[in-house]
Amino acid sequence: MEFQLNDCYKHQFTVTPDVYSHFQMCSNDRNPLHTDEEFARAKGFPEKVMYGNILNAFVSYFIGECLPTKEVIIHSQEIAFKNPVFMNEKLDFEARVSSIYEAVNAIEFKYKFIKPDGKIAAKGLIQIGLLK
Amino acid sequence: MEFQLNDCYKHQFTVTPDVYSHFQMCSNDRNPLHTDEEFARAKGFPEKVMYGNILNAFVSYFIGECLPTKEVIIHSQEIAFKNPVFMNEKLDFEARVSSIYEAVNAIEFKYKFIKPDGKIAAKGLIQIGLLK
Repeated sequence: MEFQLNDCYKHQFTVTPDVYSHFQMCSNDRNPLHTDEEFARAKGFPEKVMYGNILNAFVSYFIGECLPTKEVIIHSQEIAFKNPVFMNEKLDFEARVSSIYEAVNAIEFKYKFIKPDGKIAAKGLIQIGLLK
Repeated sequence: MEFQLNDCYKHQFTVTPDVYSHFQMCSNDRNPLHTDEEFARAKGFPEKVMYGNILNAFVSYFIGECLPTKEVIIHSQEIAFKNPVFMNEKLDFEARVSSIYEAVNAIEFKYKFIKPDGKIAAKGLIQIGLLK
């Protein structure tokens, strides 16, 4: 078993203009909150709010690329968005092994994305399966 | 209030090669399950498995573009992956208003993605806030 309870993983992610634009083309979501500076300001934000689901794309990278094994598949995910993320912010990602289900080869992580000012951007749970 | 309990929304999504490649460039996730045909076959799948978080990009489109108002923001999401999705599969997406929290201007949806063979690809919950 490559995982132990409370194992902690860290990575830094940035919503660069490239990440933003690939997400936009992937999703085809052009909601004005994410694309129209004036609309975002009228709603009380200092600038365009980044798509929350870009953070789920970062979760995909974490599971696919940052673990001690590549033989994994995601079973389920939860995310709660706590504070908006803006272009070029560096997000500190931390995930901790919160449960191990050895009988079914599954691992649960608790994770959070932290903004440069220390506030939580988002947090949640990921359950993965280990592929035999 | 633009929403009523049990309002139902439908949309069809397809993981095209373009969607796949934009997601890959957005996430930078090159896990072999999603990129290596032989690896996927060795793990018991008929071909490369599409990234599950592409479905979360589709959720982003649904919330951003398919509702009666654009003045929305996602509060939280849950997704459970039930069956793998493959390139070019057409997924029928259905979402239903499952709760309305008028005092806090929030709406909850239950949703599912259905594969061409009728099996559920994924299902979950989305909570959104209505922006004033």
